[in-house]
Amino acid sequence: MNSFGQIYRLTTFGESHGIAIGGIIDGVPAGVCLDLEALQQELNRRRPGQSAMTTQRREADIVELLSGIMDGVTTGTPIGFIIRNSDQHSNDYEEMRHKYRPSHADYTYDVKYGVRDHRGGGRSSARETTTRIVAGGIAKQLLAKYGIKIWAYTSAIGETDTPSDYHNYSAEATEQSTVRCPDPIISARMEQAITEAKSEGDTLGGTVTCIINGCPAGLGEPVYGKLQAALAAAMMSINAAKSFEYGMGSEGCRRKGSEVADQMRADDGKTIFMTNNSGGIQGGISNGEDIYFKVGFKPVATLMKKLLTITDSGDNTTIEARGRHDACVVPRAVPVVEAMAAMVILDYLLLNRTARL
Amino acid sequence: MNSFGQIYRLTTFGESHGIAIGGIIDGVPAGVCLDLEALQQELNRRRPGQSAMTTQRREADIVELLSGIMDGVTTGTPIGFIIRNSDQHSNDYEEMRHKYRPSHADYTYDVKYGVRDHRGGGRSSARETTTRIVAGGIAKQLLAKYGIKIWAYTSAIGETDTPSDYHNYSAEATEQSTVRCPDPIISARMEQAITEAKSEGDTLGGTVTCIINGCPAGLGEPVYGKLQAALAAAMMSINAAKSFEYGMGSEGCRRKGSEVADQMRADDGKTIFMTNNSGGIQGGISNGEDIYFKVGFKPVATLMKKLLTITDSGDNTTIEARGRHDACVVPRAVPVVEAMAAMVILDYLLLNRTARL
Amino acid sequence: MNSFGQIYRLTTFGESHGIAIGGIIDGVPAGVCLDLEALQQELNRRRPGQSAMTTQRREADIVELLSGIMDGVTTGTPIGFIIRNSDQHSNDYEEMRHKYRPSHADYTYDVKYGVRDHRGGGRSSARETTTRIVAGGIAKQLLAKYGIKIWAYTSAIGETDTPSDYHNYSAEATEQSTVRCPDPIISARMEQAITEAKSEGDTLGGTVTCIINGCPAGLGEPVYGKLQAALAAAMMSINAAKSFEYGMGSEGCRRKGSEVADQMRADDGKTIFMTNNSGGIQGGISNGEDIYFKVGFKPVATLMKKLLTITDSGDNTTIEARGRHDACVVPRAVPVVEAMAAMVILDYLLLNRTARL
Amino acid sequence: MNSFGQIYRLTTFGESHGIAIGGIIDGVPAGVCLDLEALQQELNRRRPGQSAMTTQRREADIVELLSGIMDGVTTGTPIGFIIRNSDQHSNDYEEMRHKYRPSHADYTYDVKYGVRDHRGGGRSSARETTTRIVAGGIAKQLLAKYGIKIWAYTSAIGETDTPSDYHNYSAEATEQSTVRCPDPIISARMEQAITEAKSEGDTLGGTVTCIINGCPAGLGEPVYGKLQAALAAAMMSINAAKSFEYGMGSEGCRRKGSEVADQMRADDGKTIFMTNNSGGIQGGISNGEDIYFKVGFKPVATLMKKLLTITDSGDNTTIEARGRHDACVVPRAVPVVEAMAAMVILDYLLLNRTARL
Repeated sequence: MNSFGQIYRLTTFGESHGIAIGGIIDGVPAGVCLDLEALQQELNRRRPGQSAMTTQRREADIVELLSGIMDGVTTGTPIGFIIRNSDQHSNDYEEMRHKYRPSHADYTYDVKYGVRDHRGGGRSSARETTTRIVAGGIAKQLLAKYGIKIWAYTSAIGETDTPSDYHNYSAEATEQSTVRCPDPIISARMEQAITEAKSEGDTLGGTVTCIINGCPAGLGEPVYGKLQAALAAAMMSINAAKSFEYGMGSEGCRRKGSEVADQMRADDGKTIFMTNNSGGIQGGISNGEDIYFKVGFKPVATLMKKLLTITDSGDNTTIEARGRHDACVVPRAVPVVEAMAAMVILDYLLLNRTARL
Repeated sequence: MNSFGQIYRLTTFGESHGIAIGGIIDGVPAGVCLDLEALQQELNRRRPGQSAMTTQRREADIVELLSGIMDGVTTGTPIGFIIRNSDQHSNDYEEMRHKYRPSHADYTYDVKYGVRDHRGGGRSSARETTTRIVAGGIAKQLLAKYGIKIWAYTSAIGETDTPSDYHNYSAEATEQSTVRCPDPIISARMEQAITEAKSEGDTLGGTVTCIINGCPAGLGEPVYGKLQAALAAAMMSINAAKSFEYGMGSEGCRRKGSEVADQMRADDGKTIFMTNNSGGIQGGISNGEDIYFKVGFKPVATLMKKLLTITDSGDNTTIEARGRHDACVVPRAVPVVEAMAAMVILDYLLLNRTARL
Repeated sequence: MNSFGQIYRLTTFGESHGIAIGGIIDGVPAGVCLDLEALQQELNRRRPGQSAMTTQRREADIVELLSGIMDGVTTGTPIGFIIRNSDQHSNDYEEMRHKYRPSHADYTYDVKYGVRDHRGGGRSSARETTTRIVAGGIAKQLLAKYGIKIWAYTSAIGETDTPSDYHNYSAEATEQSTVRCPDPIISARMEQAITEAKSEGDTLGGTVTCIINGCPAGLGEPVYGKLQAALAAAMMSINAAKSFEYGMGSEGCRRKGSEVADQMRADDGKTIFMTNNSGGIQGGISNGEDIYFKVGFKPVATLMKKLLTITDSGDNTTIEARGRHDACVVPRAVPVVEAMAAMVILDYLLLNRTARL
Repeated sequence: MNSFGQIYRLTTFGESHGIAIGGIIDGVPAGVCLDLEALQQELNRRRPGQSAMTTQRREADIVELLSGIMDGVTTGTPIGFIIRNSDQHSNDYEEMRHKYRPSHADYTYDVKYGVRDHRGGGRSSARETTTRIVAGGIAKQLLAKYGIKIWAYTSAIGETDTPSDYHNYSAEATEQSTVRCPDPIISARMEQAITEAKSEGDTLGGTVTCIINGCPAGLGEPVYGKLQAALAAAMMSINAAKSFEYGMGSEGCRRKGSEVADQMRADDGKTIFMTNNSGGIQGGISNGEDIYFKVGFKPVATLMKKLLTITDSGDNTTIEARGRHDACVVPRAVPVVEAMAAMVILDYLLLNRTARL
């Protein structure tokens, strides 16, 4: 389905090359003054054409808010919005009308629906994520009023990893890097790797690490609604995501219980966790420490190389991408990861108000 | 919340040391003959005390089905069931009344609800997963009628990994291993690792790999309801799960697009995927290939060693587990992973019936 | 589906003649001390065999609470419960195995599911409403802590109506009447009407009026979740309900706008509504006045008279009820109406906590 | 919340005097050819300014479909749409900024949200129902492919009632009446009554009767999702609705069981219901007969007369409507009732596909 969240709930529509994409945000608490310019800035962060690293398509990505706000303040009614698709070169996609792009959604949409909008991937296009940025951007502003800050960065591109953990990095340093890697040396290497892949007509994947700072203890709904389950679903719903891990993650699963238990101390009435291998979540509920997690994105299969594929009539053929495409989508996935995290945390914050009488 | 699924929907209740745990399965299609003995067998697979490897608590875990079935056939009305808690040594848990077990849910439940059932972890106990086995076991039987088979195995314990991929293993071989590892040599090493950890009062984590075979193409609901998002949420809702990856997973995120694109061929009217790095899901929708994924479980923090912690009055103290506890929960997580996967696939199979008029 | 409510959410199972019926109440706020004896009293109010007016089946209807409560206090985890079916004369229902009772659910269940539990109506039996009493009874206790009181009474049986409106009646007077009519003269006439119908092997319907007193302003979720829409759905989900009207109801629809507008006055900082034709709800949101509504129940078609019907093989036949059946279900519907109202109000009270940041 | 339906699901946004209102229809089955002109015709039926009877506001009400359709065929992805608010005389509403209109949503919105869009009622305006017409209009087209036809008519205005039941009327005759009453004599009387009320600055209410013809047996989800419960919620969510009754309705509740039981006959393998007091629904599930129900609408409180009210500062004042307002909204409610019914039936039709394996 095309809705996300329970209380703070986003529903979206739109194909890559239709008139517009957009969405409705329901459950927005009333009485909040929104910074609409900051919201547009979030969209700009995701926008293609920001640097030599990303696709040169010029999508203006201007959000038009149609309801739910009066004199800049939320009214409690749903916020409807659209983002026009300004740059529709539908003809560029004529080849895709009958050919299935390998490792894309073309074949599966056809099997499921018997019909598909082939232009630019239609509904399966990553362009859909702009609507997430809008709802996540508003969520971020609401969370900021509670002192909750969410930021993410590129922690790996291909085989190039950041050597330190997030404590050594910052959101500010991240935004100064073309590839959104806060480590300047690694950032340069990543850029080079992308440039090389691009010159070969190839693509690279990578990982995004996200940190939620200032989240109060108590958020999360056992049993099936554990906070990590909601975050995992949110992240795995992003195009090209292949893996999710939180806290010590898969590496921690190789170690002994005694090495990773987060022992506790009381200090002057304050609860101290001596480590945070739990990643800020225990038993599915936040414990007040930083929540952090990592999402792996595959190298997308839109290559400037010939790939074997078939047509929708079942004939063998080849396909080769043309035009403007990212050689690495990971830097642009960073704000999407933040947006999804923000929606989850706000949703659970609101839900948690019903936990006690 | 305590419900899982949209059409085929499980809702559960119950604490580790209450009278009973149980659940209600709604949306069970009518007219299906169930094998109730096979269902009980699924529960036996999860039951503690199966081997020296697992906790010696003797939980009978007998499921009592209270409704929704007549003469062995589902009637379309909800199936209510209970599993009595036969082995309630509540006194064993007196120490836990005021002490928080590190890396458990004790602290977070108290912060969230202001009250908690401390006996054996209460609602956060892994005992809750027995209800998943019931609903998953019924789902498995329904899926079998469509030729869909789901099986999982232990692919790593601590630092001991299976060297091959799932094509070299089988469900049958898995069940012959005490630790549910289908590779006999690795299985023996894993047993040894667990025995060693146990002798040190320590615990080990690991990974479970799950395969869904025979799943038709077309299951999955873009955008937020991608099949991998539903599977990720299902898996990350299991106690102690820390990571989820599907298809080529996080390893594949390090490679180039040209290396991992699943090229296609048509052969005699049949669609052939030359590789399956996608893990049977493209654009959030199954493509007819095997769906496979891996779940990482942390080493649980119930140690026979002193750990630093605090009381619910904010005093420093230490805690040390006593009694019967698994040194490694991974083998018993195998049927839980299968059960959750079965529920997801059945739910999406039913949902998919509404995709076309 | 077999769930009701969004935050405070009841899910139920059970057939009339199975082992037990029961349910799970999710979303119960933590930290509330429940009066379990008062809860059982609510069940006793619905129980058959209370007087000569109602069926002489002796159903003990003892609720067994299995989870979610510790030392009498809610813990925030779901409350699972069962009510055993103690009086299973399944053989009484052998005739119903193949005959469809007119105006019952027998035919439609068979068409929908291809199979049905014919004993006593199976899932479609009014016995199912006992589970609503449990969840509604707990909701009532929670609402009482906010000063919200819900009560209902029989306002008509057949052609016998109460002449006054609810302001002249009370919950106390209601409970002193065998037919739950707070007007003693009308109550006697109703009893007589029922006795007469019974002697003819016939049945009577009637109406139940319900009042929610002390409900704070602000509950209700525009647009589709208007408070009256939720109440209507709740009431129309009760067996035999045929109509719902709130406030001035259908009668008010015949009048002029100037006659029914609820004009307002301010008095010493307090908002005064000069009338309450709106029935305490305006624009789908409570305004702080009494909420009141009326539910019509049909005369059930379980007659001690021969009725024409068919068998499940499509043969013509007749059917005649035997055994113990209510000649009028309206008095026993009174606590069910209260229970459903209580669940709706509590659910919306909790939801409303998310309306503002 | 601002969503309606489970599978076929409408989510809407928009205030009366914002830039646009609109919605997203999720769960639209793929592969259906839509008649977009017929869809616009449905909107025109609701539009104000159709006759002397209705408000002279000229709202163009042109629907713009933004997604989910390709070459006129549904693609299975959500249909996003907007309807611009072309006639925004916001200044007309300046008086309403601080005064509460009696029996409207002004006061309750302020209490709930602490803020409201006062212009034309904002979100609580009946203008919101245009979005229902769009989703209902598409649903109608889908249902038509199954031979299901839905139509409604004005069955009462004020104290003027139609004397016959729906069997004597038709959708065609309905559309020839300015007040949508298919009985020409009564139609003329209704027009006169409205004209009189209007000349007095007053308003009238009435009832709408709706018929669903050709609905297959088997739709409806016991227990809480009974078909009549869904219809009741749908209808009571429409502005100004005060009552709902189906089949023999509240009148039938006054009669004896033997008078209203729908006896059955088998005729040549066909099931015959000798009467249809059940209104096509038994046990919450459709039985294949006509489904019919009646909705009562109050006379709206937008009067050209002085009414006592208060300001949002708690001061006493008076208010009197100005400008263009319907003296009777019932004729324009007819297509809204049809739209809501169509959405419910389509939703349940799709849901019912999961009832059996």
